[in-house]
Amino acid sequence: MNILFIMYDQLRFDYLSCAGHPHLETPNFDRVAAKGVRFTNAYVQSPICGASRMSFYTGRYVSSHGAAWNGFPIRVGEMTMGDHLRKLGMDCWLLGKTHMKVDAEGMARLGLSPDSMIGARQAECGFDVWVRDDGLWGAGPDGFYDEKRSPYNEYLKSKGYDSVNPWADFANSAAVNGEKASGWMFENADKPANVDEADSETPWLTGEAIRFLEKVEGPWCAHLSFIKPHWPYIVPAPYHDMYSLNHVPAALRHSIEREDPHPVYEAYMGNRIATAFQREDVRQKVIPAYMGLIKQADDQLGRLLDHLEVTGRMDDTMIVLTSDHGDYLGDHWLGEKDLFHEPSVKIPMIVYDPRKEAGATRGTTCDALVESIDLAATFVEAAGGDVPDHIIEGRSLMPWLHGEKPSDWRSYVISEFDYSSTPQCVQLGLSPRDARLFMVFDGRWKMMHAEGGFRPMLFDLQTDPEEFHDLAKTGTHQAEIDRLYDCLAEWGRRMSQRVTKSDVDIIESRGKSIRRGILPFLVDGSEVPEEMTLHYRGAAPMRAQEEKK
Amino acid sequence: MNILFIMYDQLRFDYLSCAGHPHLETPNFDRVAAKGVRFTNAYVQSPICGASRMSFYTGRYVSSHGAAWNGFPIRVGEMTMGDHLRKLGMDCWLLGKTHMKVDAEGMARLGLSPDSMIGARQAECGFDVWVRDDGLWGAGPDGFYDEKRSPYNEYLKSKGYDSVNPWADFANSAAVNGEKASGWMFENADKPANVDEADSETPWLTGEAIRFLEKVEGPWCAHLSFIKPHWPYIVPAPYHDMYSLNHVPAALRHSIEREDPHPVYEAYMGNRIATAFQREDVRQKVIPAYMGLIKQADDQLGRLLDHLEVTGRMDDTMIVLTSDHGDYLGDHWLGEKDLFHEPSVKIPMIVYDPRKEAGATRGTTCDALVESIDLAATFVEAAGGDVPDHIIEGRSLMPWLHGEKPSDWRSYVISEFDYSSTPQCVQLGLSPRDARLFMVFDGRWKMMHAEGGFRPMLFDLQTDPEEFHDLAKTGTHQAEIDRLYDCLAEWGRRMSQRVTKSDVDIIESRGKSIRRGILPFLVDGSEVPEEMTLHYRGAAPMRAQEEKK
Repeated sequence: MNILFIMYDQLRFDYLSCAGHPHLETPNFDRVAAKGVRFTNAYVQSPICGASRMSFYTGRYVSSHGAAWNGFPIRVGEMTMGDHLRKLGMDCWLLGKTHMKVDAEGMARLGLSPDSMIGARQAECGFDVWVRDDGLWGAGPDGFYDEKRSPYNEYLKSKGYDSVNPWADFANSAAVNGEKASGWMFENADKPANVDEADSETPWLTGEAIRFLEKVEGPWCAHLSFIKPHWPYIVPAPYHDMYSLNHVPAALRHSIEREDPHPVYEAYMGNRIATAFQREDVRQKVIPAYMGLIKQADDQLGRLLDHLEVTGRMDDTMIVLTSDHGDYLGDHWLGEKDLFHEPSVKIPMIVYDPRKEAGATRGTTCDALVESIDLAATFVEAAGGDVPDHIIEGRSLMPWLHGEKPSDWRSYVISEFDYSSTPQCVQLGLSPRDARLFMVFDGRWKMMHAEGGFRPMLFDLQTDPEEFHDLAKTGTHQAEIDRLYDCLAEWGRRMSQRVTKSDVDIIESRGKSIRRGILPFLVDGSEVPEEMTLHYRGAAPMRAQEEKK
Repeated sequence: MNILFIMYDQLRFDYLSCAGHPHLETPNFDRVAAKGVRFTNAYVQSPICGASRMSFYTGRYVSSHGAAWNGFPIRVGEMTMGDHLRKLGMDCWLLGKTHMKVDAEGMARLGLSPDSMIGARQAECGFDVWVRDDGLWGAGPDGFYDEKRSPYNEYLKSKGYDSVNPWADFANSAAVNGEKASGWMFENADKPANVDEADSETPWLTGEAIRFLEKVEGPWCAHLSFIKPHWPYIVPAPYHDMYSLNHVPAALRHSIEREDPHPVYEAYMGNRIATAFQREDVRQKVIPAYMGLIKQADDQLGRLLDHLEVTGRMDDTMIVLTSDHGDYLGDHWLGEKDLFHEPSVKIPMIVYDPRKEAGATRGTTCDALVESIDLAATFVEAAGGDVPDHIIEGRSLMPWLHGEKPSDWRSYVISEFDYSSTPQCVQLGLSPRDARLFMVFDGRWKMMHAEGGFRPMLFDLQTDPEEFHDLAKTGTHQAEIDRLYDCLAEWGRRMSQRVTKSDVDIIESRGKSIRRGILPFLVDGSEVPEEMTLHYRGAAPMRAQEEKK
């Protein structure tokens, strides 16, 4: 079996027709959902690209791998999906974005060259690179945000898009009266990107995927990782005007959220992106573009699925559709992601397993509490391996895919957010290590703990699915808070770093030292069989005389 | 400045005359204490050799480095004292024991050869090896416990001790009527080891240290790590009969400890070594030998100090005397170490700083809560560096050495014990990952938390310094238990793996992405200075015509 692990960046869980979006039709997402299982309670380990992805790729919590924010390198030697799968004879390829930053200092310390095979995989989060493009070719007075080469920019140049940075100048700008109208500005989100639709980012990467599929020989796992519908919010024709004001849902927000808010939430409500998304004109410009980007992604998914069907790959390829986090889009008075309301921390997660064992669950949904780290475990099992659960902290979703209901499934999910790099940390006067948030969600109650001496936040999603009423304001729900803190404490004591010894290794090693002469409990030797002590019984040896004097 | 970091294995905190032992005179330990600071509340991160040492060497908690028990490899790339000190221009040498096991799988995965300089340091926990000898050359039906070469055995052979394993046959056995009387058996602990005192382990390693000091050029840190007074409990003449029954203190134990004991404690009280040490005849044989081994260590320390004085090294060498854990010796109905009573988890910690800044504290004691991980931080500061506190979790002791009283010093210490490899785990029916214990001690209250659904243990060392009365039996001290659990939870949320970005890195990186064109909050561009948006303003570029069609 092969694995096609498709990620969309910043795709909300509820912006798909199979997830109930009232206006957006995504027949190709739905087509995979109809063949597979749609997990309706899937959460990311961190609602920010880099940290979330490192959790997907390692199968480990953010506090376990340590790459807590965008651009925080993942430590050299941290095992990834690719490391696990290659041990099982499965290649692991990257097409698109990872947001992975190499631990250059660690590489140098261990003498690893990025030019070597081992070094290259270390530098690419364990993937072999078919094409890597992180998709954010922003540039400013201090140069490019991303200093790597951009295969997408090279592609555009080869197609005649003549510019130093055609990503910015064509694919993410409109042209209005001869002037660039940059997609960085929300006021331009309703304009068509100045690029042929076929040359825009999602079709380009889909084409790369098809080229890959034509050449690859299995078994393989491919991480096909699209930058869109991530900002800049701009999309080429005809997608730019498919959706209009009538399709923009009312912002999911309530005035009570602004009354005595949690200080961290308050700081976020006051940041630049939040204040922008508090404007209806911004939402009305951005959301149709966001929907257009998703519609385009769905069409391109259809193109890819058609190719898989024609080539017979639908029969031997597991397909996963997911996202690295959501997008507030003005809900809860916020923009972007970062905090733990559902629009940010919950993700779409659709898994199609082609095998007959998955027959009974096709087209169903599953409301088990799923974490993004579960995919690495699922893939190891799909590749025929046992999940190395002393390293991978996620759990394989295979039982759910095969119609089983594990009785010992997790009872809460954890997500984390490190905002030490942000203006909110400065504004709140926190040290970098106190700018850390934790979410515990048990399927009904969702608590946010903030380091730095703040009170928690608490929502009851059963009575308040919109998460408007922070019950920790009132002090009326201390028992729930205590219980969720106990969950967080239990999680904090988890065994995350004993990565060099599996449980099986430990069980097998028991009693071995006794048979190798380590017996620090003998009074007279009668405590163990003779053979254990044979090595130090017998005649006392004599020191050689010539040496002794 | 140089650093001489001396460790004795299994040396109890209270078996020194400067620590108040009623019979044992250790004038040379006292001589260092008189020049330095003796820390009277110093604790190990795990009361077992391997895990404790990996914490000393990395400056990190056991749950952070993951090498939770003897023989659990420390993961490749984990930074050590040696890595930190070499960056500061200080060499870091090993003489003696580390109990470090190489992460051979990780080394292979990263293509590191143990023959290379980098690989050799990875394989030796960051040290350059002057001489390594882990000192446990036990052998049984399945061969040697330790498969490395034994420089000490080679030394003995060179001196005419003719045997395959002279460590066992001479240095750790007596000869009685022509028969070996092995030091593995407590009944032989009162007999003289069949070795010239000058050829026994402690003098041998002291000799190596003197040879090292004669050759080394600074600045250097040397970890001089003695195997004794660790078992086998046997010592050569004249030390074997220096102490007698009159010098054996009554066992620190109470019948109430056996009433409704904590299940884990009960399992340990029933193990082989505990039942042996519950016998007075065993204590009466072993403890005089243990004292003899310490007396010998003290005499050899005197030899070393004399050498340092004669060569002028006392003026430019920091000296640390400590241990990797204690030894129950029958106290609390236990033998060996493993649990968290003071005789096991508390260690001697004497630090001499030759510099004038330490003048005011010479000969004083300090009762601050000290953890073994503090030494790595202290050494980095001694070498002139800033402690990389995103990696090293300990805190430098330098303020205490220089007479300051940091107001933000830690308010509790943590220790951990993983007993997944032991018969007690099997006996209690636990999975390997539930066989984990945590200690929280705040200077007065000491709690043990056990995974696996057990109640905690709680002692009040103010009213019960002997730790006889487990207050968690009675349910009367829930507030203290809750408070200590809050400490444990706080510790569990610590940031231990964000090792690739320092706080300084983070503070410096703030705002950088904006100046590199990442501005996902612009409505119309007026939100930032013109220079930030200059890169995407201007005339819309045209696609080259020849390519466009």
